[in-house]
Amino acid sequence: MSAGATPARLDTASDYCAAIRAGDRRAIARAITLIESTRADHQAKGQAILDALVGHAGGAVRIGITGPPGVGKSTFIEAFGLYLVAQGRRVAVLAVDPSSPVSGGSILGDKTRMEQLAQAEHAFIRPSPSGGALGGVAHRTREVMLLCEAAGFDAVVIETVGIGQSEVAVRSMVDFFAVLLQPASGDDLQGIKRGVLELADALVVNKCDGELREAALRSKREHEQALTLFRPSAGGWKPVALAASARTGEGVPELWRTVLAQRETLEKSGALAQRRRSQAREWMWSLVGEGLQQALREHAAVAAAIPALEADVEAQRLTPAAAARQLLGTFLARR
Amino acid sequence: MSAGATPARLDTASDYCAAIRAGDRRAIARAITLIESTRADHQAKGQAILDALVGHAGGAVRIGITGPPGVGKSTFIEAFGLYLVAQGRRVAVLAVDPSSPVSGGSILGDKTRMEQLAQAEHAFIRPSPSGGALGGVAHRTREVMLLCEAAGFDAVVIETVGIGQSEVAVRSMVDFFAVLLQPASGDDLQGIKRGVLELADALVVNKCDGELREAALRSKREHEQALTLFRPSAGGWKPVALAASARTGEGVPELWRTVLAQRETLEKSGALAQRRRSQAREWMWSLVGEGLQQALREHAAVAAAIPALEADVEAQRLTPAAAARQLLGTFLARR
Repeated sequence: MSAGATPARLDTASDYCAAIRAGDRRAIARAITLIESTRADHQAKGQAILDALVGHAGGAVRIGITGPPGVGKSTFIEAFGLYLVAQGRRVAVLAVDPSSPVSGGSILGDKTRMEQLAQAEHAFIRPSPSGGALGGVAHRTREVMLLCEAAGFDAVVIETVGIGQSEVAVRSMVDFFAVLLQPASGDDLQGIKRGVLELADALVVNKCDGELREAALRSKREHEQALTLFRPSAGGWKPVALAASARTGEGVPELWRTVLAQRETLEKSGALAQRRRSQAREWMWSLVGEGLQQALREHAAVAAAIPALEADVEAQRLTPAAAARQLLGTFLARR
Repeated sequence: MSAGATPARLDTASDYCAAIRAGDRRAIARAITLIESTRADHQAKGQAILDALVGHAGGAVRIGITGPPGVGKSTFIEAFGLYLVAQGRRVAVLAVDPSSPVSGGSILGDKTRMEQLAQAEHAFIRPSPSGGALGGVAHRTREVMLLCEAAGFDAVVIETVGIGQSEVAVRSMVDFFAVLLQPASGDDLQGIKRGVLELADALVVNKCDGELREAALRSKREHEQALTLFRPSAGGWKPVALAASARTGEGVPELWRTVLAQRETLEKSGALAQRRRSQAREWMWSLVGEGLQQALREHAAVAAAIPALEADVEAQRLTPAAAARQLLGTFLARR
């Protein structure tokens, strides 16, 4: 973007804003680091930058992509991203990986897994922040998404692993949600978590090439049949099944056409604007709920009482309502 | 149960406890009325009764049954309840109906929809409480369930309508969850909400009789195929599809055998005890969360600020995080 230009001065929030809106990659990366930092002063600066940018966000197509380990998510997202870049689009790829605090690594590793896309001028790749609970990771990802939108990216792709809870979080921040699947059939498909399929706007059977091609096409047809069980989601979109290959590029343009078709459907019905408004409102209330729970758990007398109350409730010595009354009474007593 | 005996005195919580544990239907009904009351003194008495009974609860098989309007839920539950009663079991039927505050009625109406079961000595039917939010209704239903268990019922059946949110609430309080479906196929099956199927331990195609029998059996086979997409839920149970008829009784004993088989699977794996412990703990935290939100919304300065903050967030004038910080700051300021 501003490759070759003299690096902008980055001191105040408004320095950052100007540089980010001009597409300065260094400013984007540093602002994300501030947002993801656990230091209070960094966080405050990151939030100040976001507050100033919020009015310029919202312009991207927000796409979530998930799938079980081994399905080839990174390779597929790279192929998808390169296709969009070739179409003249600017693409940001972000990752939500709730397992990273445990494994110590992130799903995107050292970025080299998307080597070609990482070198594209109009692409920006950000691996998952390390550490923190899923809620926190997902909230930071939402904020990084807003920042990328203010920087002018046309599409933001959020990658996550197929383990259930993170899918729900990612679904609640995107416009379109795709689930990548292995070319397998029947009982072999069990790797995917129950509940994840229900969130999908599209099921994409990957690896539709070479000797797996027939299996992938058969698998796609089976998914199409299973999808007839679902009624359209709010806004009138009916989920579809596709077959694709990151290697040959087959199905990649079709996925993009599907994204645009779903968008048109949701725009016509007014569901897209409505979904984004309610996502923003729910996000606020979810942050309020987390803040309240955090304040409660940090309250010394409450924290001291929790273990015994939980044990009493689990052993049926106390009703959950009675235990909740005790916790709330302790917390709210000094108000 | 204690039909014909002199009515017990019902003044103190311990009067109620003794009468409820003896199976006195009048005491059960009056205690439920206290629990469901919006009067603070009634609620306090209801909670005192529950606190004293909690150690005697937990002995029933907890079964949730849902399905779209018109599928014949009440008729089916009546047939199922009468079968259990004939097997020497004592059955309580409760209803969760989040639509009742709107419609002014409850799904069970004036009880006459389960006329035969209502007359059975070993059955107890309680329609949905009227008024209140879903969360509240569901919490009261959980408490009524505990009360019925303390009264010695072997099975508690919780009926709900198939509209999504109430299913999640009911799923989180039962051991076994069945979804009733119409005998239809392919695109005609669209009445069921996406997400509900994912919660099911069993899909039951009802109306498997007369000229619909063939369609019901075909529909059952189609569901069986779709279920191969799902992997077993925690505890090792793999959802099954059944066909049944409330009219002829076909499939009703099979559903009960399925409930017992799932129970055996979950008991062997230890998942049943674990599920109930975590359900109780989550219920406590959900009540704490609701209590905190309620305290926040009742805080005058917070309540005054909410509408403008929500509008700012929806219109992207403010980030959700900034709005949440303002609300939390106002609420927690005086602590």
